[in-house]
Amino acid sequence: MSLVKVELGARSYDIVIGNRIALSHLPENARGGKRLFVFDDKTYELYAGAFAERNEFCFSFGRGEADKRFDKMITICQAAIANHLDRSGELVAVGGGVTGDMTGFAAAIYLRGINFIQMPTTLLAMVDSSVGGKTAVDLPEGKNLVGVFHQPDLVLIDTEFLRTLPEKELHCGVAEVVKMAIGFDEVFFKRLEEMGGKLSKVESFMPDAEDIIRRSCELKADVVRRDETETVSGVRELLNFGHTFGHAMETLSDFSLSHGEGVAIGMVLAGRAAMMRNMWGEAEQMRMIKLLKAAGLPVDVPKTMDFKDILEVMRRDKKNRGGKITLILPRRIGELTVVRDFSDQELEQVWQSAVQGSYHD
Amino acid sequence: MSLVKVELGARSYDIVIGNRIALSHLPENARGGKRLFVFDDKTYELYAGAFAERNEFCFSFGRGEADKRFDKMITICQAAIANHLDRSGELVAVGGGVTGDMTGFAAAIYLRGINFIQMPTTLLAMVDSSVGGKTAVDLPEGKNLVGVFHQPDLVLIDTEFLRTLPEKELHCGVAEVVKMAIGFDEVFFKRLEEMGGKLSKVESFMPDAEDIIRRSCELKADVVRRDETETVSGVRELLNFGHTFGHAMETLSDFSLSHGEGVAIGMVLAGRAAMMRNMWGEAEQMRMIKLLKAAGLPVDVPKTMDFKDILEVMRRDKKNRGGKITLILPRRIGELTVVRDFSDQELEQVWQSAVQGSYHD
Repeated sequence: MSLVKVELGARSYDIVIGNRIALSHLPENARGGKRLFVFDDKTYELYAGAFAERNEFCFSFGRGEADKRFDKMITICQAAIANHLDRSGELVAVGGGVTGDMTGFAAAIYLRGINFIQMPTTLLAMVDSSVGGKTAVDLPEGKNLVGVFHQPDLVLIDTEFLRTLPEKELHCGVAEVVKMAIGFDEVFFKRLEEMGGKLSKVESFMPDAEDIIRRSCELKADVVRRDETETVSGVRELLNFGHTFGHAMETLSDFSLSHGEGVAIGMVLAGRAAMMRNMWGEAEQMRMIKLLKAAGLPVDVPKTMDFKDILEVMRRDKKNRGGKITLILPRRIGELTVVRDFSDQELEQVWQSAVQGSYHD
Repeated sequence: MSLVKVELGARSYDIVIGNRIALSHLPENARGGKRLFVFDDKTYELYAGAFAERNEFCFSFGRGEADKRFDKMITICQAAIANHLDRSGELVAVGGGVTGDMTGFAAAIYLRGINFIQMPTTLLAMVDSSVGGKTAVDLPEGKNLVGVFHQPDLVLIDTEFLRTLPEKELHCGVAEVVKMAIGFDEVFFKRLEEMGGKLSKVESFMPDAEDIIRRSCELKADVVRRDETETVSGVRELLNFGHTFGHAMETLSDFSLSHGEGVAIGMVLAGRAAMMRNMWGEAEQMRMIKLLKAAGLPVDVPKTMDFKDILEVMRRDKKNRGGKITLILPRRIGELTVVRDFSDQELEQVWQSAVQGSYHD
């Protein structure tokens, strides 16, 4: 088992990582109150039985991403009322990022805040949602428009959950792991390079899962510790490497492109932008691309998308400041920088160079 | 003008109190973003014109108490989106406690939190909601079941708003002022005694309004400073003096009894309970009753209510701990104490003695 301490003063918490620990290592509710386990329909079907056998209350809020809505989040609060949870109560999220987001938000507002434990079941949720305390739901006007920063009291990562994960979702999580390596740790990047194709299959990923998740969480925890609520310029926003273009492509694809796929292509575009400014070389770009491909991720832009649409979606990004589109660019493997002075023309050049070129073997 | 500093570390803020200061003393948004003024239908009709003249965005979420719902709170966030508020945006609540609660909650969750200014228009909101940072909305299952602690960035109290206040709502606010005096400041209590009947009419209340609001806010700020999120036993919960019985009666009356009226009768019942334990004397009880009556508040229990119903509602109170009903009782004028060992029989004795006796002149 591994332990990562997320140091946030009074809001510090532990991430415990291991195999087959979900049932054996879940502590009693420290406040002595009742507990409600929250799932989406899929994780409910897969895992609720094991918890129900232990007489735990189990509840599914719905279909996952499609139900990441306010009214569905409120049904979690209503399930807490129905099960008589008081201020000493506790919510436990068992699922992917959406389940964690919805449950964390519910825990933050139910009776003005109760305990919250996360048991992520996807690699993306294990390495990304488990650190940072961001919770949110969508509104008809856009994604993640309302939410709170609410740190969990404990994150329990059981790598055994990965065995039921579809391959595409494994790749999605690996994209975030690669992002952390390129952004913050060259040694970690080399280790991922050595794993290569092993990153693309659950079976070959499993032996290294605990260690990779630990290192990725450590790196993110270190960033979040320095900028808990994303208010310090150039700290937490570095985590958006690959996300400016990535999120726009994800949105324009109507989410047929997964988050991880968007981030992978977005990192390649950020690399192209960095090369235009002579901050990043062809050799490093090719190392990044080779690793992403080995991990089963796409690296070429969807050629059907129009740059004008991409630009419009990027403009609406709530992370922009003073109307300027913020880009996070690589300087070298292990170091990122914030750039806010790209003109629309330069952004279009980046896009067009990617549309024309592609990265074949 | 008067200034009260609410000291809460990084979340400290000022309360500015004066007459005709709403338009003249509202500072520019320090973060430079856009601003949205939020009203209920009534305050919108009365005051939105003056703000709209200055080209401010104005929005009413609905009917006040009857619309203190989740979906209505979300319409505030949607109005913020429609007016292009980003993370540097600011919400300004212009209204009573419900408007402040709804707007504060919306400000806490919109884009995970933006600036929030309160301009309370009722005496109750000026002395009560302006200090403490509690926000919440109702669910079908009960009142205030979901919310957050979210401190405003500024509270601007313009006593001129009181001129349009119905007399019954003035009394409601005075009940909370009397509560603060009995609980925490004997000198303040004596001053209220000297005012006597002047407390019951807006016209005669106005000359002392600024000073009374200031002192009441100071007293509450001192309590909240020591226990921001109501987690320390015997500190912030003292503010619930009069609220255990009061809230139950308010609920059972289907809110025909106002919050202030419930609290007034609730304080008298708490006084009776304290007398049963020999903590509080007949003379002090009579002083409290005389002041409440002079202020136009009721002191006798609604005789149609059944104790069994009262007890059931009190049991559901989210402020109870370990299943025990918590009473806040007076020890002397200026001092309160928490008592958790009243049996159901004793509570019934308190209630029955109040039903049988009444406090005539």
